[in-house]
Amino acid sequence: MLEKTHRMNYLYDFYQALLTPKQSSYMALYYLDDYSLGEIAAEYDVSRQAVYDNIKRTEAMLEEYEEKLLLFDKFQKRIELIEKMKQLIGNDENSHVLTEMIAELEKLD
Amino acid sequence: MLEKTHRMNYLYDFYQALLTPKQSSYMALYYLDDYSLGEIAAEYDVSRQAVYDNIKRTEAMLEEYEEKLLLFDKFQKRIELIEKMKQLIGNDENSHVLTEMIAELEKLD
Repeated sequence: MLEKTHRMNYLYDFYQALLTPKQSSYMALYYLDDYSLGEIAAEYDVSRQAVYDNIKRTEAMLEEYEEKLLLFDKFQKRIELIEKMKQLIGNDENSHVLTEMIAELEKLD
Repeated sequence: MLEKTHRMNYLYDFYQALLTPKQSSYMALYYLDDYSLGEIAAEYDVSRQAVYDNIKRTEAMLEEYEEKLLLFDKFQKRIELIEKMKQLIGNDENSHVLTEMIAELEKLD
């Protein structure tokens, strides 16, 4: 479950701009703010089942976007390469600038 | 016009997985294979206007995806940083490995 939460947090981060406002709110409350289905249902004055169905559909949508665009997959590969590069960069005069550029690269993710 | 073609080629490249097969075919013929609207219309046995409308709508969709996900924008910034990094990497023992990692980073785009 923790692994799924971790993955959904990332997928939500990458693709939330493609969700409707309601989908986005439910996902944020459930996955980021750790609300229960019942708490979200109370907040929006809908049934617990309605919240559950909406979140399940949104999760499937996020996985579909990931299958098509691979943003999370590429992000993970990029982070791995960047970490290795950091370890390889020496102490010469160019290292400081290279380190700054790597930081810029990381910010783009 | 050339600049627009260039931009559309990239947006198509980043977001084609989100298009329908028909949208994707029309865009590929028009922007990648340089078919005219009339040639695409003849190929699919539809009116020139229908092809035009479909392509215009698809272009708007691609721009909307870019507004939301910024994949082309981030790609350009990443390429710029990577080019600068290539110029900074020296000739020490680590350079070869660093250069290989940068090549890996480029492949992810």
